[in-house]
Amino acid sequence: MIKPKAFMFDVFGTIVDWREGVATVAKRFFNQKNIKQNPYAFADSWRAKYQPAMQRIRSGNRGFVALDTLHRENLNLVLAELDLSDEFNEQEKQSLNRAWEQLPPWTDCVAGLTAIKQNAIIAPCSNGSIALMTRLARFGNLPWDCILGAEIAQTYKPNPDAYLKSVAALGLSPHEIVMVAAHNDDLVAASNCGLKTAFIPRQKEHGEDQTIDLEPTGDWDYIIKTINELSTL
Amino acid sequence: MIKPKAFMFDVFGTIVDWREGVATVAKRFFNQKNIKQNPYAFADSWRAKYQPAMQRIRSGNRGFVALDTLHRENLNLVLAELDLSDEFNEQEKQSLNRAWEQLPPWTDCVAGLTAIKQNAIIAPCSNGSIALMTRLARFGNLPWDCILGAEIAQTYKPNPDAYLKSVAALGLSPHEIVMVAAHNDDLVAASNCGLKTAFIPRQKEHGEDQTIDLEPTGDWDYIIKTINELSTL
Repeated sequence: MIKPKAFMFDVFGTIVDWREGVATVAKRFFNQKNIKQNPYAFADSWRAKYQPAMQRIRSGNRGFVALDTLHRENLNLVLAELDLSDEFNEQEKQSLNRAWEQLPPWTDCVAGLTAIKQNAIIAPCSNGSIALMTRLARFGNLPWDCILGAEIAQTYKPNPDAYLKSVAALGLSPHEIVMVAAHNDDLVAASNCGLKTAFIPRQKEHGEDQTIDLEPTGDWDYIIKTINELSTL
Repeated sequence: MIKPKAFMFDVFGTIVDWREGVATVAKRFFNQKNIKQNPYAFADSWRAKYQPAMQRIRSGNRGFVALDTLHRENLNLVLAELDLSDEFNEQEKQSLNRAWEQLPPWTDCVAGLTAIKQNAIIAPCSNGSIALMTRLARFGNLPWDCILGAEIAQTYKPNPDAYLKSVAALGLSPHEIVMVAAHNDDLVAASNCGLKTAFIPRQKEHGEDQTIDLEPTGDWDYIIKTINELSTL
């Protein structure tokens, strides 16, 4: 197998712990306002609206808008469902929406990415926007070479263009790039586009009772436990 | 004046010495092939075809193509003019085209950008592609947070969209961003889009006999001698 020229990474779940990060920011607000709401359940409910919102864009029923906008719209829905809409003014809602820019990396990521970067290009291929990925990188010291993914492709994963336009933006061929993800369905789509694949289980992404993506379910090129393992390919 | 939230930088001439970088790679080829050609004059001739090639795209006479492609087309033109076309095979021409990915930063840039990055987002807003800017950053250790500019805007500076779509990709307003350039015309365009402006003279960009952009010719917000000066705004 040829030495990869670039590695592209899923981010939410694969590189950062979105559930812990969103819950941390939400908890701060709930405490200030004396709201009795489990912040992890809140994070889960907010995230549950992620795929349906993107699906309207992937299917062509809505033009592309950045994920920040979808998160903000979904926040309104979640607050309404929990009867919390009146507890937050507009500025507070905007501030709460920035929870997605403050997600802690899993402990192996910064050292692992730094090691890979010595010999290959590293970039997120996430559904997050350039603005979101940029601030998340600054928050967690993620040493990306550039930001690829949904915004430059103007569509969301797992649509093929989200991968293929990211590949094209590097001036490389799909087989020269490894897509790294904790989600089997992301790797199915990347593999169908001709990319190499690496699966890294994140068995607490959804908390203690996680039932999906505990194991690889496809014949991926690499199965790893820490990001650093990719630095010696 | 408010504290800037981001700084966007012109790159060719402002951050890197394209003339020295292109001449260095060209000289290596010329020596190997025993070609009697001044490599600096060669770099100047190649660069002279830069604006006309972009102008066809800015004016709408051609769809957007990345700068790497324009450089490659322009290389054919320059080699033909110098009667050197038959001296290079296709692989060598591609390799020579990658001279644009190997341009040394001016000596103040890496430390200056690193200092600014502590408190604000830093990104190129260049006509170079994502692929080109990414490899140039790796070559020169430029610590960009993300890559903005022509490719994400799908048009070339000084068209307004090249600035405004870069601003939008950060989720900021123009007045929150400083555009930094060694070229007065770049700052005219950025200023017209509502960005703040910083001029840094690079009086050897075009060699010893440079006649343009020796001094600021507009009422720019900041006039600096080294990039580091922007870190204390």
